Amino acid sequence: MKIALDAMGGDFAPGNPVAGAVAALRDFADVSIVFVGDEQKVRAELLRHDTEGLSDRISVHHASQVVDMSDSGIDSVRKKKDSSVSRAVDLVKSGEADAIVSAGHTGALVAAATIKLRTLPGIDRAGLAVLIPADNGVFLLIDGGANIDPAPEHIVGFAVMGSIYYRELLNCPEPKVGLFNIGTEASKGTEFAKECHALLSAAPVNFAGNVEGHSIFRKPVEVVVCDGFVGNIVLKTIEGLAKSFFGWFREELKKNPIRLLGALLCRGAFRSIKDRTSTDEYGGTPLLGVNGICIKAHGNSSPRALRNAIRVARAAVGQQVNRRIVEAIKSHHEKVTNGQNATA
Amino acid sequence: MKIALDAMGGDFAPGNPVAGAVAALRDFADVSIVFVGDEQKVRAELLRHDTEGLSDRISVHHASQVVDMSDSGIDSVRKKKDSSVSRAVDLVKSGEADAIVSAGHTGALVAAATIKLRTLPGIDRAGLAVLIPADNGVFLLIDGGANIDPAPEHIVGFAVMGSIYYRELLNCPEPKVGLFNIGTEASKGTEFAKECHALLSAAPVNFAGNVEGHSIFRKPVEVVVCDGFVGNIVLKTIEGLAKSFFGWFREELKKNPIRLLGALLCRGAFRSIKDRTSTDEYGGTPLLGVNGICIKAHGNSSPRALRNAIRVARAAVGQQVNRRIVEAIKSHHEKVTNGQNATA
Repeated sequence: MKIALDAMGGDFAPGNPVAGAVAALRDFADVSIVFVGDEQKVRAELLRHDTEGLSDRISVHHASQVVDMSDSGIDSVRKKKDSSVSRAVDLVKSGEADAIVSAGHTGALVAAATIKLRTLPGIDRAGLAVLIPADNGVFLLIDGGANIDPAPEHIVGFAVMGSIYYRELLNCPEPKVGLFNIGTEASKGTEFAKECHALLSAAPVNFAGNVEGHSIFRKPVEVVVCDGFVGNIVLKTIEGLAKSFFGWFREELKKNPIRLLGALLCRGAFRSIKDRTSTDEYGGTPLLGVNGICIKAHGNSSPRALRNAIRVARAAVGQQVNRRIVEAIKSHHEKVTNGQNATA
Repeated sequence: MKIALDAMGGDFAPGNPVAGAVAALRDFADVSIVFVGDEQKVRAELLRHDTEGLSDRISVHHASQVVDMSDSGIDSVRKKKDSSVSRAVDLVKSGEADAIVSAGHTGALVAAATIKLRTLPGIDRAGLAVLIPADNGVFLLIDGGANIDPAPEHIVGFAVMGSIYYRELLNCPEPKVGLFNIGTEASKGTEFAKECHALLSAAPVNFAGNVEGHSIFRKPVEVVVCDGFVGNIVLKTIEGLAKSFFGWFREELKKNPIRLLGALLCRGAFRSIKDRTSTDEYGGTPLLGVNGICIKAHGNSSPRALRNAIRVARAAVGQQVNRRIVEAIKSHHEKVTNGQNATA
């Protein structure tokens, strides 16, 4: 399979995307990479790596523009037609690539994918589906920031897509869905939250009601749905707190030599928790709901994170998640229509 | 000073409120407590403690009703006029008490305080001001959940109040204020966030722009403002992650005896981080903006947390925060009015 990599996306581009892709090419023999971006810069970066035996799976597709963080997502599609992210999406649209991976501007990827690839039948808005570590495994949060101002029915779409993705990815037959809210009672939250609660109660998902931040890590539900504004803020807060936690430990452990010795003896435990909470290991989050596989990697992705984002793209192509989402929505609509006919 | 304690509020009432108050009475000789709630139950609970030498600083004010978590905040004020939280607020209104402390229903406390005590001149909405541990000290998040659907101008009120509270509490002359958002650029976020950004830029606070979750713990700003929906979700997420973190460590450390030995040697470091992130130590969060000192303690407060909530109430009375907030708003309005006259 061929993966279009936005070589210019992210804080450390094209260095980290190229390094991550070379690692992925070594680890996954069935993957080819088309690097989309400034050809000269990409070629120069490739020269810094040993690509012996990989060259028949490497190609470069030139794109002359780069989306900046200050660009608006929608405008970037209209005004920077030759941006690396837009061109990478074009390759998926034309069938020249099976998936796109980008560590660049989230809004630009969401806009390019939504405008060019369109959303799946029955889905109006795409959502970023992010895996988060919990006491027993992981839960999925959707939307992690693709749509910051959705309508309640879009949240239902997130619930449907998130359930299918979690089911396929983690072999969990009927994942429970929770609405991220400020209290467990149905009456809690904003008007928006209450409307979401009502719609989710009637939706074709295993809805378990509202969930709160102090319980989500105990995994009362497998899928947590919220709007992209709340989702993005929460994700970054989790990331920030996890990092600071390790910093605070380092500081405390350095305070005396006995603590340092102790830290040495249990450094395996520290490393294990660090791996578990590291965004590097998850690599990339799928943008569910668009008609093509789009994986968003973190803006500050390391080569390891980008290698893993390519791994996620590879798995998503294999699982045919999009086809399954369309089928589930179709079957829901049929049920609803039949129900209406029966009542009529 | 006399503090009205909602003896029936919280998951472990009246046991924990009574135990926390007895500890506070021992530690703070200038504090008297009026326990508001079911007199018989409160007296029975008091008998379980050694109150020798404290009895002249203890009184009980009977209230026959309790607000349940399923009650709506506003309705609870109208329909349960004799609830412990409403009666405790009454005591502050009549001047019989200097402050109220409650671990009960947040919405009920906010509604009772707003309706009975009214907001301060120049402030339309009250906000919960929560201290959160950061790399260098603490930052303040406001609103932690008092108003889940505020207007942009209410966010400005939170910024003003938060700045004054932080300044007084932590001796920080000009605390920086950040708007909790999904990107640092002024163009980022919902329409609501953009309006808040514009208003904050012109407000009488040291506004430093947007802040994101992955940076807040490094304390780029001292005061983080957001609506109460986002604030409450974030607070609980921080609390949940901190708890799970320690659980994950425990699990990892138990995996072999060498790690266990290491953990024993650096247990001081674990304890220190645990204390730093424990909601028990902060105890209670002030509801800023109402005309009276109201301290909200966590619903599942331990006796220690309630003792510390009383400590926070005591400090707030001493600092005369409300008077200072009114003065700052008045001086801002005068400046604005003078400015308008000058332009006219």
